[in-house]
Amino acid sequence: MTQLHFDDFTPGRVFDLGTVLVDHDEMVAFAHRFDPQPFHVDEDAAKASLFGGLAASGWFTASLWMRAYVDGVLARSPSLGSPGGEEIAWPAPVFAGDELRAAMEVLEARRSRSRPDLGLVRLRATLHRDDELVFRSVFTGMFGTGNGAP
Amino acid sequence: MTQLHFDDFTPGRVFDLGTVLVDHDEMVAFAHRFDPQPFHVDEDAAKASLFGGLAASGWFTASLWMRAYVDGVLARSPSLGSPGGEEIAWPAPVFAGDELRAAMEVLEARRSRSRPDLGLVRLRATLHRDDELVFRSVFTGMFGTGNGAP
Repeated sequence: MTQLHFDDFTPGRVFDLGTVLVDHDEMVAFAHRFDPQPFHVDEDAAKASLFGGLAASGWFTASLWMRAYVDGVLARSPSLGSPGGEEIAWPAPVFAGDELRAAMEVLEARRSRSRPDLGLVRLRATLHRDDELVFRSVFTGMFGTGNGAP
Repeated sequence: MTQLHFDDFTPGRVFDLGTVLVDHDEMVAFAHRFDPQPFHVDEDAAKASLFGGLAASGWFTASLWMRAYVDGVLARSPSLGSPGGEEIAWPAPVFAGDELRAAMEVLEARRSRSRPDLGLVRLRATLHRDDELVFRSVFTGMFGTGNGAP
């Protein structure tokens, strides 16, 4: 797998992170532990809800994207974590059995002024089911730039 | 447990969601599945990282807050899910064994103009370790207002 360097994160570059299959049992187990609202854990309650069916917790959806991002980008990059971001959105519910396409787009990349060994990459995370956007987030990733050890 | 209605979400109201203990094994298992970066899964790599020790995935931290929010607020409210939010931040790393205090503050509450049965509550989520903020998010929750079934 080609290594990625900070300079490879050029604004506008899109990384296709492949597809993610939403597993029913894992989705429900996650919800039982972290987000046990009726529409995430109870089939009948979910049918009567705004979602119209058992829907994934938004944090499960975000976590699925994260795994695709680690596998597709971070595992071959000098990733140093993230301080956070400015947007997180779940514009449509995610259901068990969904196949979601994960992507990451570089919006901006700059070296930290105070620490040239640290690169800050502002990026947009997305998950689509066919043409429908089901998850979007904009946040900042920190990367080593190679200018000294961070 | 007292039921909460949409009208109980008044701007400025703070809900103390109690404390959450960060379990080492669960934290690492979560990272192995969703965010297997070295500083989340490998003690030695983590010590050499910016975090200085094995740190929780930010999505695990967010999920811990979510569970406290469900237990403390959503389980006794007409929650209808969330479309997303405008901020997510991990200003300091979270470590195994940490005891974190969870809270939710109402920033704004309004009825949807087009759907008076739907209430939108803008809120700030926080997790603190003693006085140190380790997680913050601002997002919108949807709630039934009681004006007809949503």
